[in-house]
Amino acid sequence: MSTALNPGAMQPFALTLNRFIDHAAKWHAGAEVITGAGAGAGTRITYAALRERSRRLSGALQAIGLARGDNLGVLAWNSQAHMECWYGAVGVGIVCHTLNPRLATAHLAAMISQAANRVLAISPDLAPLAETLAPLCPSLQHIVMLEEPGAEMALPDCGNAQVWRYEDLLAERGAPVEWGGFDEYAPAGLCFTSGTTGAPKGVTYTHRSNYLHTLHQTQTDTGGLSGRDTVLAAVPMFHANGWGLPFSAPAVGANLVFPGRYQDGASLTRLIRDEQVTVAAGVPTVWLGLCDHLDRVGGDVPSLRRIMVGGSPIPQALMDRLERRLDVTVQTSWGMTELSPLGTTTPATAPVRSAAKSGRPPIGVDLLLTDVEGAPLPEQRGHEGRLHVRGASVVERYFGHDEPAVDADGWFDTGDLAIVDETGNVSITGRAKDLIKSGGEWINPQEIEAIVGALPEVAQVAVIGRAHEKWGERPILVIEPRKGVEIGDEALRDALRARVASWWLPDAIVRVATMPLAATGKIDKMRLRDDHG
Amino acid sequence: MSTALNPGAMQPFALTLNRFIDHAAKWHAGAEVITGAGAGAGTRITYAALRERSRRLSGALQAIGLARGDNLGVLAWNSQAHMECWYGAVGVGIVCHTLNPRLATAHLAAMISQAANRVLAISPDLAPLAETLAPLCPSLQHIVMLEEPGAEMALPDCGNAQVWRYEDLLAERGAPVEWGGFDEYAPAGLCFTSGTTGAPKGVTYTHRSNYLHTLHQTQTDTGGLSGRDTVLAAVPMFHANGWGLPFSAPAVGANLVFPGRYQDGASLTRLIRDEQVTVAAGVPTVWLGLCDHLDRVGGDVPSLRRIMVGGSPIPQALMDRLERRLDVTVQTSWGMTELSPLGTTTPATAPVRSAAKSGRPPIGVDLLLTDVEGAPLPEQRGHEGRLHVRGASVVERYFGHDEPAVDADGWFDTGDLAIVDETGNVSITGRAKDLIKSGGEWINPQEIEAIVGALPEVAQVAVIGRAHEKWGERPILVIEPRKGVEIGDEALRDALRARVASWWLPDAIVRVATMPLAATGKIDKMRLRDDHG
Repeated sequence: MSTALNPGAMQPFALTLNRFIDHAAKWHAGAEVITGAGAGAGTRITYAALRERSRRLSGALQAIGLARGDNLGVLAWNSQAHMECWYGAVGVGIVCHTLNPRLATAHLAAMISQAANRVLAISPDLAPLAETLAPLCPSLQHIVMLEEPGAEMALPDCGNAQVWRYEDLLAERGAPVEWGGFDEYAPAGLCFTSGTTGAPKGVTYTHRSNYLHTLHQTQTDTGGLSGRDTVLAAVPMFHANGWGLPFSAPAVGANLVFPGRYQDGASLTRLIRDEQVTVAAGVPTVWLGLCDHLDRVGGDVPSLRRIMVGGSPIPQALMDRLERRLDVTVQTSWGMTELSPLGTTTPATAPVRSAAKSGRPPIGVDLLLTDVEGAPLPEQRGHEGRLHVRGASVVERYFGHDEPAVDADGWFDTGDLAIVDETGNVSITGRAKDLIKSGGEWINPQEIEAIVGALPEVAQVAVIGRAHEKWGERPILVIEPRKGVEIGDEALRDALRARVASWWLPDAIVRVATMPLAATGKIDKMRLRDDHG
Repeated sequence: MSTALNPGAMQPFALTLNRFIDHAAKWHAGAEVITGAGAGAGTRITYAALRERSRRLSGALQAIGLARGDNLGVLAWNSQAHMECWYGAVGVGIVCHTLNPRLATAHLAAMISQAANRVLAISPDLAPLAETLAPLCPSLQHIVMLEEPGAEMALPDCGNAQVWRYEDLLAERGAPVEWGGFDEYAPAGLCFTSGTTGAPKGVTYTHRSNYLHTLHQTQTDTGGLSGRDTVLAAVPMFHANGWGLPFSAPAVGANLVFPGRYQDGASLTRLIRDEQVTVAAGVPTVWLGLCDHLDRVGGDVPSLRRIMVGGSPIPQALMDRLERRLDVTVQTSWGMTELSPLGTTTPATAPVRSAAKSGRPPIGVDLLLTDVEGAPLPEQRGHEGRLHVRGASVVERYFGHDEPAVDADGWFDTGDLAIVDETGNVSITGRAKDLIKSGGEWINPQEIEAIVGALPEVAQVAVIGRAHEKWGERPILVIEPRKGVEIGDEALRDALRARVASWWLPDAIVRVATMPLAATGKIDKMRLRDDHG
């Protein structure tokens, strides 16, 4: 044994999130964070200046009583001020608790109370929501009204909670403080799952898990950002770390563009053109809006090279349309709040890409397919199974829970169904809990949705189960036709007849003017089941 | 305070190096490791098969007495067997101690003894070296003769040490074992510095430091490898982790091509063409050889898109010639054994590139310029200073040393001189210890070398100091002219006159047929000073 040897050492280096802004401020001094304001004038700031403001916010948060390990509630659109909240909090070990303004008030109040938020930072146009929430959330002591371009500041009446203008707070209490000095395993973020398929559960991201997620995401075959990119974060920051972009953009020195609350096609078009955006990220419906707008008014977005989509499956017809109309590469991915969120990505340069394929996991993420009881499938390639995940940025235990969210071998059950092909390429084939059991056999709604979603006449599609006396459950097809076009029931059934078993054909077809969307932008199947199930 | 909250947790995930091969074997099953054999037939193996062989080697190493924390000596060219030694060792916590066959025997013996190597794995053509080393290294108990394509196996007589054929060892003792289960701070690699400028010092890489280095290197703007790349590792694996390629290639699923001991232009040309190599990495002189070969025999290497250079400054003329002749992007970088080795890189897509610029540090590496006493320069941009480094993969303390290799603030002094421009782009301007003090003023050899190296008639150039009674030291210019061309002393001095002060002009000009190279491939200035100083 070599126990007598003195083996030398590498430098200590805590994986804390403040390093991303520290790095950008020092090594990418010219790169900027830009916030759009719809048709109005936006704002821009260098990473160096944003770092200084964030360090002052750190001091202000401490001055009004937050300490390491406390949760800062943030209920805001994507903006510079929101980004400053993130770094102001995490730089001194305060946990950034992102909240989705589109959630029901009762849900928000429950999350704020569960996280014991004493301070809530909120977008200026959400002042009425602050007034509603304050009496429901007894833990709240301070409400900070953020400043965002294109939004009026109206100070809410929040009862006992003190209301601050953001700039006043910085000016009066914002003595800059040094960042870091805590353990990389310290919590950094808190994000509740959407709750569209069950009670919301909080996922606690650590500095380490988010730092590693950022490194995995900045690889060429995943996010692939470079210092010459300008990335549009059209995915809200309250969705699973904003897909990590507020970390990965400064980590590589890319310009970062926030749309504020303006996610419509006209505002995004303007922002992309003004800022020469090269890469954009968001759910498919956002890009549908961009395409529709350009079709209406003409013109294009020549600087844009790539769109990263995720959050929900993209129909092949939409993917094809985006690639043709916008002259971009659509990069499919799969992820979850519980995964920080990166699970799999199709490389932007993959020779063959399709809407049905979500790519491979990067290093640091591993996948396992099991049967319905959780036993690993003996053959992991070419067979559908329940998708389980292990990795450096995957939940082990939810916020406030005592029991783990993983099995005895450490695997997290995603609830998704998937097939992995021989090359390791993953196709998400459905949600286990969306499956419809008809006559003792399973019908997978997602297979039907993929076929109907490929029809040019169909804008959005969902298949839900309806209780049936004889068969247990039967499928119902719900479609939102594209504006100005029609498609008959028989044409829809004909499209399916060639591709699925006859007993998979829907018992009824429902047309809706607008598909109901949950707060995450995904189709709200719980609502559809209430209305049509 | 929120101490009553139960904040949830992310999964544990140790940053250990076996994960790279585990990942490639499972998710990039079609990717391969290829070993060239000069004009002969090479070998190829999938990552999955290489993983199985490496796991058997782990068992064999344990069977012949190595345990966690022990050092395995490896004295070998770049090959599949060498790669199996790395993963076979690190997978079970054995430290891979790479040794450079071109070092002097006495140096090698000292390193083997200092590391207490009981097992030495060695390339088959190095059998005579094994016979020389064995009696000088009493710690050695087992010599493992690796198998490499294009090399005859001649079993050496190593006295008391048992000599194994590699395949026999695998067959007789190679029961596969499970990998992992140890701390990420455990040592993984040991590499001695070249010793061309002082006594060799050992750098101990940990699993964590190499894992993080790999993640930094697989970013788009650094190594930028993708799963569709085939990368030629022409940098020896005994040079600072082989620039990390044996880790980063499997981490992203790239094919990895080893040239064995055949680094000549003809062998590299053949390998690049046969394997459709897209990216290559190595010191500038290797690519000079490739260019000269193609100029002689004609033809090109159309699959090659990019060459990563490092290890020593590349003359602008050579960089221009490589880019024109090979139709590639030359990516400059700066690094050191002590940095694992990545310090700075010019992104492959940078709009402006030059041989004098080494790019920016990635996230995880930070730089500081100081004066000669180690005090930080008040202005870090636009002024030359001594370059210091801090980071996740930077040495803190050398092998066997008690005192740290860093200052009180944790900075490692590289001994290099550098200027950083306003955009954060680093130029290495010289070695502090190479500076020549003439009449109390400093002359920087590297500035003279850059000017003379840009002349088309000059293949290699070095400037050294010669003792002088009056001035203390005076510069001597040593050149290796390009084959078949001549350049007179006055032409050389004229080239310098316009660009440097008159007292920087060399006192003498020496022509050599071949510039002496140290074992690392860098110009051997110690030898030049002995011969001409």
